[in-house]
Amino acid sequence: MKSTTGNFFEDFHLGRVIHHATPRTITSGDAALYMALYGSRFAPQSSSVLARNFGYREAPIDDLLVFHMVFGKSVPDISLNAVANLGYAECRFLAPVFPGDTLSARSEVIGLRETSSGEAGIVWVRTTGANQRGETVVEYVRWVMVRKRDRSSPAPAPVVPVLAERVAPESLGQAVPPLPPGAWDKTAAGSPWTFADYTPGERIDHIDGMTIEEAEHQLATRLYQNTARVHFDAHSEANSRLGRRLVYGGVVMSVARALSFNGMGSAFHVAAINGGRHMAPCTAGDTIYAATEILECAAIAGRDDLAAIRTRLTATAQRSGNAEASILLELDMWLALPRL
Amino acid sequence: MKSTTGNFFEDFHLGRVIHHATPRTITSGDAALYMALYGSRFAPQSSSVLARNFGYREAPIDDLLVFHMVFGKSVPDISLNAVANLGYAECRFLAPVFPGDTLSARSEVIGLRETSSGEAGIVWVRTTGANQRGETVVEYVRWVMVRKRDRSSPAPAPVVPVLAERVAPESLGQAVPPLPPGAWDKTAAGSPWTFADYTPGERIDHIDGMTIEEAEHQLATRLYQNTARVHFDAHSEANSRLGRRLVYGGVVMSVARALSFNGMGSAFHVAAINGGRHMAPCTAGDTIYAATEILECAAIAGRDDLAAIRTRLTATAQRSGNAEASILLELDMWLALPRL
Amino acid sequence: MKSTTGNFFEDFHLGRVIHHATPRTITSGDAALYMALYGSRFAPQSSSVLARNFGYREAPIDDLLVFHMVFGKSVPDISLNAVANLGYAECRFLAPVFPGDTLSARSEVIGLRETSSGEAGIVWVRTTGANQRGETVVEYVRWVMVRKRDRSSPAPAPVVPVLAERVAPESLGQAVPPLPPGAWDKTAAGSPWTFADYTPGERIDHIDGMTIEEAEHQLATRLYQNTARVHFDAHSEANSRLGRRLVYGGVVMSVARALSFNGMGSAFHVAAINGGRHMAPCTAGDTIYAATEILECAAIAGRDDLAAIRTRLTATAQRSGNAEASILLELDMWLALPRL
Repeated sequence: MKSTTGNFFEDFHLGRVIHHATPRTITSGDAALYMALYGSRFAPQSSSVLARNFGYREAPIDDLLVFHMVFGKSVPDISLNAVANLGYAECRFLAPVFPGDTLSARSEVIGLRETSSGEAGIVWVRTTGANQRGETVVEYVRWVMVRKRDRSSPAPAPVVPVLAERVAPESLGQAVPPLPPGAWDKTAAGSPWTFADYTPGERIDHIDGMTIEEAEHQLATRLYQNTARVHFDAHSEANSRLGRRLVYGGVVMSVARALSFNGMGSAFHVAAINGGRHMAPCTAGDTIYAATEILECAAIAGRDDLAAIRTRLTATAQRSGNAEASILLELDMWLALPRL
Repeated sequence: MKSTTGNFFEDFHLGRVIHHATPRTITSGDAALYMALYGSRFAPQSSSVLARNFGYREAPIDDLLVFHMVFGKSVPDISLNAVANLGYAECRFLAPVFPGDTLSARSEVIGLRETSSGEAGIVWVRTTGANQRGETVVEYVRWVMVRKRDRSSPAPAPVVPVLAERVAPESLGQAVPPLPPGAWDKTAAGSPWTFADYTPGERIDHIDGMTIEEAEHQLATRLYQNTARVHFDAHSEANSRLGRRLVYGGVVMSVARALSFNGMGSAFHVAAINGGRHMAPCTAGDTIYAATEILECAAIAGRDDLAAIRTRLTATAQRSGNAEASILLELDMWLALPRL
Repeated sequence: MKSTTGNFFEDFHLGRVIHHATPRTITSGDAALYMALYGSRFAPQSSSVLARNFGYREAPIDDLLVFHMVFGKSVPDISLNAVANLGYAECRFLAPVFPGDTLSARSEVIGLRETSSGEAGIVWVRTTGANQRGETVVEYVRWVMVRKRDRSSPAPAPVVPVLAERVAPESLGQAVPPLPPGAWDKTAAGSPWTFADYTPGERIDHIDGMTIEEAEHQLATRLYQNTARVHFDAHSEANSRLGRRLVYGGVVMSVARALSFNGMGSAFHVAAINGGRHMAPCTAGDTIYAATEILECAAIAGRDDLAAIRTRLTATAQRSGNAEASILLELDMWLALPRL
């Protein structure tokens, strides 16, 4: 067989490093598609003029687009045989990405544990995305339940990595250049609220909803070169548990992040993802709503231009014929805001 | 509340100027998406080589894409609580826009009138889109019926602006560089017809039809960062008068304009929109057809390379199960053509 | 009538040369859309870094995107009145295309034969796509059955061109720069297999499936400025033989080619299309699968860096409610691979 069905649980060994194919040059075309797919409006990603005012070379690529591109590269090696994407942690954005940059991805296996059923196992990987100069632009840990090729394969010694509950706020903001004093323009950026306005415990309903179409999530997921067949193959998925194609969880992340502009418009940068869980599957036709809870407000060491807010972004879905909304996603993030 | 539900009729005051967020850098990625969404084929927008032959620096951004981008910026401030988009007038395209340009938008309230029911009011705004050098690239008046926050709020003194029935043809063509003699290539441009071939009263059926999908109008409308929830939220729109998502009227404009290439291929530039009315709502599944009526043929002062034709572009929709077509849109425009 | 319904069989004469409108500048935006539409992952098209390592100036435009763009230009002149697209032959890719290049297309009528029914005729054209320097980037023969305007028109003398069964392998590879020794990186390129690993007679199942949505094929086909109404007009197609919109055959080609990465990842370049036949119509909702049969392995004269494999790529469709898959497409191609 020259074609591959991907790695099974037995193929992962602690410490194994996988260099993922294919590197990907990100262009302004990708940024335009990201805008069309989600309608994001954060200031520096939307306007090169504002980006330059804020100290960037030009409009940076949206953080989550970078995340999805790196994640997508890892799919053919890590999660073609995934039963479930269980979580993310310790995700940090470490350098800005601009149109023309080329991203490569590699993953290291940092944990393994067979499930009690003996039919699958949980694999923890730390995935790193680097640009063409070898600088890490994003890194994160994810864990995923992967089918075994053969039920009778022996279980590896279980190793469960200890993961930080949250990224230390002192280390945030490396992907953001120094913001010149007075450069932040509230009106242009579309939000009257600044760091000082947010308080732990506060909840923000982002009001708007967005309904996801099959064509949209497929376009998005292919743009990321994510090859997981569950997102694309209606014929084989007709026999799956859901009975239909599953929307890539990253689409839900991006929709919720874009909706969060209404109330969090000055939080222009995702500095870190402390944790993320997909609580329920999303399928086309779902209308996604988003809400934010402010968890923590923190200074960033050495930065008087920037501060961080830790939020829990929750995405819920309304389905036709269902009275109640389902929670799809909880994303615990550090967002960076200008300190005015 | 940190998130906003937008301005209500009471929030508009005569002379109020609103600077809209967020400026937007337009790229070749946006132009590619516009092509994919509508299939436009006008010569200078399609080919940088032809564009340079015609005196442009490179392929300019389609006029209606510029219009939609500027319009989209105004939506969060002007029309989140719109009951209906009533009309456009005095729209002029004043400078070409190229990939890399950054557009900002502002609107001034120029008219107000409460409706007789006392539940809403009509707001007239003059919206201006400018590039990063502060040059106006497009300006237009639109009026929209906006809900009142509180039925009992007092009505403002009614002010209804006097709007030109049509833009004066002498002032057209500012967005078009001088066309070098002999530069226009009929074969390459895809139309044998020139200015002299069109006669007032003539009607052109553009023949082709285009069916609109939910994913398509959503992609388009997000690309413009237009946030009106009626276009995106199938769940809440299930309870609306239409019972489903409404297609942004600008999508209908662009589909009809693209279809008009067949018969009006040399009319490469929308120089002005004298008036526009959305006569009926468009929803996904509608198949749009277009027809043009030639209203007026005019010289442009100081331009022997360029002339203008005033047309009424009508878009109609066929719906499954409906024998008769509905008129969706009438757009009274000045189009610029080469004077050969 | 200023709008056109296209040429009928009577309008084609042997030796007639048609210069197609409108030239089209291809940008990185088009490349991003192509990625989003098909999820292609071949190395040099995905990464400018790898492309430069392989000797390209930057990431080249996907060969099939070039083909579709040139084909699209020819549609308004050649196939608006097509009953069926019958085949392709002698298609060669002769120069790489990069973002910023502008493609023009022309066709010469090289064969004509009225059908026995007297209601249509087969037209053979050789279509050539050239860049802004006049260099041919692709050329191919296609034949198409075109309706007659008038049943009673006299039949032309039948001329059926003699077409090569396959492009001579010695002439391949002109669109690929010399590959520096050691430059090919199997890991980055995503395939462990090289030229030497493939054997005539071998069959490769590419495993994955992709379901096509109406919005997706419409976006693709408009991106190519292909104006054949059968792809866009659900209203008029409701009365057609299929009862619905037909997916442009080039979409099937691109989906199958993208799926073939899994097993043929090192075959980064379509050097020639020896023949292609659309065996059955594709409509939205079809899930497409692909398989490759290796037909021939060949050296390329004067190239010790590159070799060619002749393959038959077969696309099949699964439809809901249909137990059996239908064959949609057979594409006989020469693919170029690095000779390691």
